[in-house]
Amino acid sequence: MKSYPLGEIASRLNLRLIGDPDCQIQGLGTLASANTGDISFLSNISYLRQLSKTSASAVIVEESQADLVPTNALIAEQPYVAFAHVSQLFAEQSEVAAGVHASAIVADSVSLGEGVYIGANAVIEDDVEIGANSSIGPGTVLGRGVRVGDNCRLHAQVTLYHAVRIGSRVNIHSHAVIGADGFGFAFDGERSIKIQQLGAVWIGDDVDVGAGTTIDRGAIEDTIVEDGVKIDNQVQIGHNCHIGAHSVICGCTAIAGSAKIGRYCVLGGASGMVGHLCLADGVQVSAMSLVNKSITEPGTYSSGTGQMKVADWKRAIVRFQQLDSIARRLKDLERLIDADDRAR
Amino acid sequence: MKSYPLGEIASRLNLRLIGDPDCQIQGLGTLASANTGDISFLSNISYLRQLSKTSASAVIVEESQADLVPTNALIAEQPYVAFAHVSQLFAEQSEVAAGVHASAIVADSVSLGEGVYIGANAVIEDDVEIGANSSIGPGTVLGRGVRVGDNCRLHAQVTLYHAVRIGSRVNIHSHAVIGADGFGFAFDGERSIKIQQLGAVWIGDDVDVGAGTTIDRGAIEDTIVEDGVKIDNQVQIGHNCHIGAHSVICGCTAIAGSAKIGRYCVLGGASGMVGHLCLADGVQVSAMSLVNKSITEPGTYSSGTGQMKVADWKRAIVRFQQLDSIARRLKDLERLIDADDRAR
Amino acid sequence: MKSYPLGEIASRLNLRLIGDPDCQIQGLGTLASANTGDISFLSNISYLRQLSKTSASAVIVEESQADLVPTNALIAEQPYVAFAHVSQLFAEQSEVAAGVHASAIVADSVSLGEGVYIGANAVIEDDVEIGANSSIGPGTVLGRGVRVGDNCRLHAQVTLYHAVRIGSRVNIHSHAVIGADGFGFAFDGERSIKIQQLGAVWIGDDVDVGAGTTIDRGAIEDTIVEDGVKIDNQVQIGHNCHIGAHSVICGCTAIAGSAKIGRYCVLGGASGMVGHLCLADGVQVSAMSLVNKSITEPGTYSSGTGQMKVADWKRAIVRFQQLDSIARRLKDLERLIDADDRAR
Repeated sequence: MKSYPLGEIASRLNLRLIGDPDCQIQGLGTLASANTGDISFLSNISYLRQLSKTSASAVIVEESQADLVPTNALIAEQPYVAFAHVSQLFAEQSEVAAGVHASAIVADSVSLGEGVYIGANAVIEDDVEIGANSSIGPGTVLGRGVRVGDNCRLHAQVTLYHAVRIGSRVNIHSHAVIGADGFGFAFDGERSIKIQQLGAVWIGDDVDVGAGTTIDRGAIEDTIVEDGVKIDNQVQIGHNCHIGAHSVICGCTAIAGSAKIGRYCVLGGASGMVGHLCLADGVQVSAMSLVNKSITEPGTYSSGTGQMKVADWKRAIVRFQQLDSIARRLKDLERLIDADDRAR
Repeated sequence: MKSYPLGEIASRLNLRLIGDPDCQIQGLGTLASANTGDISFLSNISYLRQLSKTSASAVIVEESQADLVPTNALIAEQPYVAFAHVSQLFAEQSEVAAGVHASAIVADSVSLGEGVYIGANAVIEDDVEIGANSSIGPGTVLGRGVRVGDNCRLHAQVTLYHAVRIGSRVNIHSHAVIGADGFGFAFDGERSIKIQQLGAVWIGDDVDVGAGTTIDRGAIEDTIVEDGVKIDNQVQIGHNCHIGAHSVICGCTAIAGSAKIGRYCVLGGASGMVGHLCLADGVQVSAMSLVNKSITEPGTYSSGTGQMKVADWKRAIVRFQQLDSIARRLKDLERLIDADDRAR
Repeated sequence: MKSYPLGEIASRLNLRLIGDPDCQIQGLGTLASANTGDISFLSNISYLRQLSKTSASAVIVEESQADLVPTNALIAEQPYVAFAHVSQLFAEQSEVAAGVHASAIVADSVSLGEGVYIGANAVIEDDVEIGANSSIGPGTVLGRGVRVGDNCRLHAQVTLYHAVRIGSRVNIHSHAVIGADGFGFAFDGERSIKIQQLGAVWIGDDVDVGAGTTIDRGAIEDTIVEDGVKIDNQVQIGHNCHIGAHSVICGCTAIAGSAKIGRYCVLGGASGMVGHLCLADGVQVSAMSLVNKSITEPGTYSSGTGQMKVADWKRAIVRFQQLDSIARRLKDLERLIDADDRAR
């Protein structure tokens, strides 16, 4: 178990410490769950009540809340960001040493940087290049001509199809599939004729890809995911999409082909986006909403209805289906009353 | 092919038999599809018409329907539950004998109970413990320190990340991923800083996990799935969720982080739940509905609109976007007419 | 890099050429992105403006647009279909030669046709039959008794459970799981009792299955996917579904058990379908719509609301929940005004 004196944490993160620099910190916790020896944080005023009762041995807060901390305090401009940095001090050591497991199948033409780890039963096909200190998990398959940058971590059982290129410091979780064929068919009146998917996938630096996520290769040009994009589990990104830098795509989101998403966008969980649409920079889409028109202004967009008890909901959806008639009848009444008024 | 005299089925399940105990039963069928030699069941009155015409050699019914069965009958309080038990008599033998396949990669520090099977190309990392009679499918990867109870079945190509613990009699289908990092980042104004996911996943006894389902490890504490929970395919369960015992989560459901779901809940297919919300025990959510507020009373909840022909729907959604204005105009008319009435 | 004289492309596809038969074509492009040496197409009048400015060396168009092409033209009745056929000329050679990789685990009882390829670390269990020229990717697992037809391509890390049968010319992308147990349980009042899933999955010829898609085995009879069906990524098809020939199912669609889908249907991305419902031939469902009633007439069907700015949307959903009351109040006003009119 790791342990750091609080003073060391403060100096590593360049935060002001109010309290005991020798206090040993052994773990992290929320204000409500933390025990003695844990460090916690306050980033949301709605948890202020929990601050006075916390058992944490130190709390990261903004300057303005410093007086309210009942224990040691670290002062940060962005307490949640500081907590993220602290969490990295407590991450487990990478469990893998460098080296190629004896059971891995690595083609002769593969180029491996220094410190690369290749796990058991991984399959690395011809002409793959893997940068320094990257780690390839057990059972992962890298197709012909794949390029992986430095300091990447591909967990167990990832699949990268041929010619996929990923940058440095990219994490890809298990069962993600990058570079499968885009869904392109031309219907000739009787059957669907496959359009060969001749592009690839290009992924920038500092990208995270969640478990079970699929990112298809382009039909002609590449599918592109820019630097710093964070993608959660079970997301589908269709062929020829372009995801702008630092955008965040939450779990189970479905993005159809050729969508263009700006920088610093956030797509909420299980949201959807119709193909060939564009989002401006800074657009946020709420959970389970469908983007069915391009969005040119930043802001938050939603669709759907709120949850209701099923009996009320059944009445509401009957009325939803009558909505056009309701609106017309209202208009008729307004005309009639307006005429009455004038007649009087 | 298996075959049982009907009398043996009756005595194994402790059901009353009306008819021929020597009738050989070789399989199962619905009332409409069953052939001679099959056993069927009636649990839903709407299928009563099919009962008189069935070709089944025996039908499981409630006492009150016994007279309507045109062939041998087994009397059960819950015919569908009895049918589930009968189905287990016809399940294929586990196709696997105990033993470790020569191609499996098993670390020296692994502890295997009696009767354990490890399939071809499976990878079992350091300090894993697997209980008696559990079966690990081909290509499955168990990370460092994983604990698997007794009589579990992990199918081919499952991934359990380090330190995941599962109880006994747990079934996990192919390409499920348990214990990948939760989706936690702190945004510092320019980029997303990863919050290390230091918790694990704890799964109780008698849990089923469907193919392609992902259950993320907790940020600080564990993600928890209690006993008897049944999870279908392609479900996403975010970090720090807590799923109460015997709840049922249908396919493609997306549950964001830190959601708390009570006992005996049912989440319909492709439903969604926003993070940090709670469901009371016994809540049911209908297919493709979004839970966007906590629910404190049992009952069924829904969202969305019913399906419509696209031309009608396009008119309705225009009106949906005018709904607030429609409601205000209606209120104005009501005031006007009320004023008229009073004036008269 | 492949290259063909335009005249050869014209004659292979049986298209009329207007222009230079010796022009070398080296790749494909959209009208906007194509470079010299590329062939492009016009199938949608809305791209007509791009035609005059294209850098492509040849464009496939309908007869009526021939005069508008500023370079070489190929005349086709269905330009997009012709483009699909051309794309196949530029597909990379199958990267795999016939043969069984030394690391593959192939049971003695397996039957392999001529020209079959089995990739590294694939696991082929007892009694599997694989037809001529089929290719099984690295790490793919075929369970006991699986049948694969001729000229199939299973990419890396596909899982087919026991007894699944697929036809010829079927493509299955990575991490697809075919034949996992359907989600069948009988609730006895305290816990869910598993109903053994004793059927299998039957897939016809010329079917495509996307990455991460799951198709469950039937409870009693087989789940069936007919010829020519195209299924995108992360689709879930429940047990005992029947998908009619040449239907198209876009990404992330969730189809509950026992659904019957006709021929030539199109289910849009992330759409859903409640179990036990039927779709007639030729039904189209728009993106993210839920089918909650059977549909007996061809046409397009939708559900949901259009996207809105979040502030407007919040007002609209409050009104949605008041819709029944709004409709009743409108009716009351209509009655009142009608009475007034009669009174006058």
